[in-house]
Amino acid sequence: MSKPVVEFWFEFASTYSYLSAMRLPRMAEASGVTVHWRPFLLGPIFAAQGMSDSPFKIFPTKGAYMWRDIERLAARQGVPFRRLERFPQNGLHAARIAQIALHRSEGIAFCHNVYLAEFADGKDISDPETLADCAARAGLPTDILSNAKTPENKLALRHATEAAAERGVFGAPSFLVGDELFWGDDRLQDALDWAIRHG
Amino acid sequence: MSKPVVEFWFEFASTYSYLSAMRLPRMAEASGVTVHWRPFLLGPIFAAQGMSDSPFKIFPTKGAYMWRDIERLAARQGVPFRRLERFPQNGLHAARIAQIALHRSEGIAFCHNVYLAEFADGKDISDPETLADCAARAGLPTDILSNAKTPENKLALRHATEAAAERGVFGAPSFLVGDELFWGDDRLQDALDWAIRHG
Repeated sequence: MSKPVVEFWFEFASTYSYLSAMRLPRMAEASGVTVHWRPFLLGPIFAAQGMSDSPFKIFPTKGAYMWRDIERLAARQGVPFRRLERFPQNGLHAARIAQIALHRSEGIAFCHNVYLAEFADGKDISDPETLADCAARAGLPTDILSNAKTPENKLALRHATEAAAERGVFGAPSFLVGDELFWGDDRLQDALDWAIRHG
Repeated sequence: MSKPVVEFWFEFASTYSYLSAMRLPRMAEASGVTVHWRPFLLGPIFAAQGMSDSPFKIFPTKGAYMWRDIERLAARQGVPFRRLERFPQNGLHAARIAQIALHRSEGIAFCHNVYLAEFADGKDISDPETLADCAARAGLPTDILSNAKTPENKLALRHATEAAAERGVFGAPSFLVGDELFWGDDRLQDALDWAIRHG
């Protein structure tokens, strides 16, 4: 019998994706579920729904709530967190690096480093120096940053985002078990459970 | 020491409010928390955010996901549920009746009857006959339907909706423990826990 699989679709600008990314490895291990990390971009996903910005900016009351909700959840989950003055950040370059880095065992550490730089340390994750530091601390080879900029890799990330949209993804984080979609950090355990029962 | 209190802000048109309403009494009892049921209308709340319809209609991909999500959750929670062809329903009259009925011990049964008529039986909850039946089966006096239409009671519901907006409510269900806001059916237990620890 093959191991159950969950696809984890995440965006580096997304606060709720951060919470899922940080605890997903240990939860997946505890559940015996294999996770495929799938970086994508929310910008085109929101644009297709008629939104030119994050819903947390378009709907400020909801945005104000989101910061407080994340603050409470992060405290409970033992994850460092600070409210960002500039939000959402531009996660394009980080996502392109993740797109190739996740073919290697150091990929998840890179993703964690980016999320921590952003939401724990308040750094600018579109800054090449920040990203180089995140890659180095994950033990990735130094040429990963230039390799992330190849036309092939840029296209791979674009196709990933298109695939997400085609499969019904409208926000992040999203979890897919086959065609079964789970949206939001609060559906993480549900997605793992579904993979075990139906995967 | 006084009993911890959670305010439960709900709208009859809201699918996620339905899920919370059905299991809230037993969860609150198990937690030793007093719940104040607060009906309100999402229409003005959405309008203030620039939305002239339910976000599940404005964003159809999200809407499609919502029906599947509710279906899964209802099955797990043992709550009957059918997808509605006409959505959202008009919950104005039901909310006006609830606004006065909840001063009586039969109020919660009335709310449950309305939600079940809507989401289990697929009935039109703006239909006076449906509402009369919900009231009768809750054991409410027959004059409750006319009493719900007094100018005082209409104003009370309008004020409730305004109070919700002023306190940061932007969707339903919402739970308030003092000024601490929790949004969504998946925050129900968090709200009860918060009331116990901080209430």
